[in-house]
Amino acid sequence: MYVEQATRQQLQDWQEELFANHQRFMSSGLNLDLTRGKPSAAQLSLANVLDGILDGNYFSADGTDTRNYGGLDGLPAMRQLAADMLGVKAEEILVGGNSSLTLMYFSVLFAWQFGLSGPDSAWRHEGAIKFLCPVPGYDRHFAICEKFGIEMVNVPMNNDGPDMDVVEALIRNDPGIKGIWCVPKYSNPTGCIYSANTIERLAKLGSIAAPNFRVFYDNAYAVHDLKDSPAELANIMAFCEKQGTENSVLQFGSTSKITFAGAGVAFMAGSKANLNTMKKHLEIATIGPDKVNQLRHLKMIGNMTELRNHMARHAELLRPRFACALQHLEENFRDSDLGEWSPPDGGYFISFDTRPGLASAVIRLAAEAGVKLTPAGATFPYGKDPDDKNIRLAPSFPTVEDIDRAMAVFCNAVKLASVNQRLGA
Amino acid sequence: MYVEQATRQQLQDWQEELFANHQRFMSSGLNLDLTRGKPSAAQLSLANVLDGILDGNYFSADGTDTRNYGGLDGLPAMRQLAADMLGVKAEEILVGGNSSLTLMYFSVLFAWQFGLSGPDSAWRHEGAIKFLCPVPGYDRHFAICEKFGIEMVNVPMNNDGPDMDVVEALIRNDPGIKGIWCVPKYSNPTGCIYSANTIERLAKLGSIAAPNFRVFYDNAYAVHDLKDSPAELANIMAFCEKQGTENSVLQFGSTSKITFAGAGVAFMAGSKANLNTMKKHLEIATIGPDKVNQLRHLKMIGNMTELRNHMARHAELLRPRFACALQHLEENFRDSDLGEWSPPDGGYFISFDTRPGLASAVIRLAAEAGVKLTPAGATFPYGKDPDDKNIRLAPSFPTVEDIDRAMAVFCNAVKLASVNQRLGA
Repeated sequence: MYVEQATRQQLQDWQEELFANHQRFMSSGLNLDLTRGKPSAAQLSLANVLDGILDGNYFSADGTDTRNYGGLDGLPAMRQLAADMLGVKAEEILVGGNSSLTLMYFSVLFAWQFGLSGPDSAWRHEGAIKFLCPVPGYDRHFAICEKFGIEMVNVPMNNDGPDMDVVEALIRNDPGIKGIWCVPKYSNPTGCIYSANTIERLAKLGSIAAPNFRVFYDNAYAVHDLKDSPAELANIMAFCEKQGTENSVLQFGSTSKITFAGAGVAFMAGSKANLNTMKKHLEIATIGPDKVNQLRHLKMIGNMTELRNHMARHAELLRPRFACALQHLEENFRDSDLGEWSPPDGGYFISFDTRPGLASAVIRLAAEAGVKLTPAGATFPYGKDPDDKNIRLAPSFPTVEDIDRAMAVFCNAVKLASVNQRLGA
Repeated sequence: MYVEQATRQQLQDWQEELFANHQRFMSSGLNLDLTRGKPSAAQLSLANVLDGILDGNYFSADGTDTRNYGGLDGLPAMRQLAADMLGVKAEEILVGGNSSLTLMYFSVLFAWQFGLSGPDSAWRHEGAIKFLCPVPGYDRHFAICEKFGIEMVNVPMNNDGPDMDVVEALIRNDPGIKGIWCVPKYSNPTGCIYSANTIERLAKLGSIAAPNFRVFYDNAYAVHDLKDSPAELANIMAFCEKQGTENSVLQFGSTSKITFAGAGVAFMAGSKANLNTMKKHLEIATIGPDKVNQLRHLKMIGNMTELRNHMARHAELLRPRFACALQHLEENFRDSDLGEWSPPDGGYFISFDTRPGLASAVIRLAAEAGVKLTPAGATFPYGKDPDDKNIRLAPSFPTVEDIDRAMAVFCNAVKLASVNQRLGA
């Protein structure tokens, strides 16, 4: 369906048919939800062995009684596993509680309030500061900036990561830019993987940006592949070491979508200097993370081989869900001028761009028909999509049957909104 | 032993004998530690049943899949249990991660940065602000204030809690006072229990202090009794309701010294307005606490009866340790002018005051003889004990045998330092 070249009569015929479909959906009493970027119950059950896995032995291999206080760094074996996941050294890892978001929040807080390179480097002393936000992106990253009054600047997201020409030009011209949010693998929501060139240029930002600038590198989907031979993500710390910019990058990860979404283990990676600063401030806020849960995780997933095997079982559950959603998009929009998307090789989302100005209308129509979609603008800073076109679809949680029904409603809504727009114009 | 009235000859005889003891201790190669306010391995083992207690069922009574994201408030049953522990209503409870210290840190952070009663109430807008700190007190409370540059003002601690005449006078004269740290039951380290009168007056502070003042009420030892018929703590929220000062108190608690010190469940209590504010800011920093661990705790300790029974088993392990330490103090200092202490009925500490100016010397002597004590001044803001007399003894972690040996060293050190001081004078 190409609405651009269609005649008025053709558009009116389509509108009639699409609206009839829409009314049929409305009267069928659907109650479906494509908003939730969280694992399904079946995925969570893959880790059910966690509870009880210790068999009464709460001591870790290094002799720590995990039940007692302390251990701000994390258990040595957990640091090693996290290091292997993020491609760094064990001593470059700090293990946190159950939430990498909390580690990101603390990182921004400490940088803002206390400074990551001494008190003079605290962002709060510099008046209005800014973060670069490749868009579309992750709403919870943006929410942290908004909370601290950090101005967010949109940067275009390409298929190989943020548009680095734009990023570098902005940073060269404005020392008030203190950070950039990145999800380098299966980016939320576009699913793209940053190229080696993009990552090398991100690693070089530390040499052109202000000394208190940091790349916030949220590698949330480091091992969350849908295919058997996944693409390798280039190693940002290796590039940093070549450039001498090790202090300019903070990496984050967790097992939230590996074991239990609410009860996993979060961690971050950074240079020795950055980690020492983090710990100096973090030890005021906690006596240490839950080491018993770290030990449970180590018993279940002790090394990368076991981790890859475990993630293959997740992929088995996720693949049919993504396939179903993508098939609807293929069948409805392959030969059309109604929308754009890229099939992701991993992660949790499909990013769909409608014709400009239609995301809100599509989401409203889908809601009328009983299908909840992520609010328009949610993938942009301040919830404002300048083109009102991006919609984040999350197929991990519902059943394939529900995805099938929800996508039928969604595709019809995209078509109907597009036709309505042309006829209104 | 009374050094005040002793003759020079008597002091010299004592010095000779005590120094000989000290040398004997030094050559015996002791390596003991009375600094650690943490449970012993035997206490932790009382909760070993936690791992595996779910028997494959991760759904809570209210139908929540505890493995997935969400649940910022905590599971309803966990909120009820925490409410029963703190004497409030379930809807006045917010369940956090594994650390009540983190909830306190976030409370100070949010009050400082964002304001607990709207943006205008943020402490950072008011320049230099102050907290009242009953002394001796808990070093980690003081560390939070120090981190945020909040000036700490010492307030005398009596046997029934902070000297409220002093507290009220200071608050009436200075709207820059924004908080007071309290450990109302088995206060850290004196072990005192705040009287009903003290608690009523704390509840009334909200009517004389600045609107953005809060009582930080850390009820860390709410059920940590050493005796079978423990004293009842008066209910501060009941007093607040009478006064209309519900917004002026934030309460904190956890199961850290009930189940696992590093892997328990923390919670806070507050008015609906305070909790809503907390959640508004907290939801930016986390998607929710570990609900699986909450469910484990509920399976193990579902109600206050089970909790009391469990705490009785802790008391059985703690009583001989406290008894041993107290017996040494009794035998050595009951008839003396060398020090003061009060036998606590619960909690984790014994607070010992030497003659003025001697705490550092005692701690140094004990260290020479292989007994590590909490650093002098640790129980005071900025680590400065103006009288250099308070020493916090923590008998929970070592064996009774080790406490016995350590206390022999300690008592000799107190005597030797006292005699040295008199002879030097």
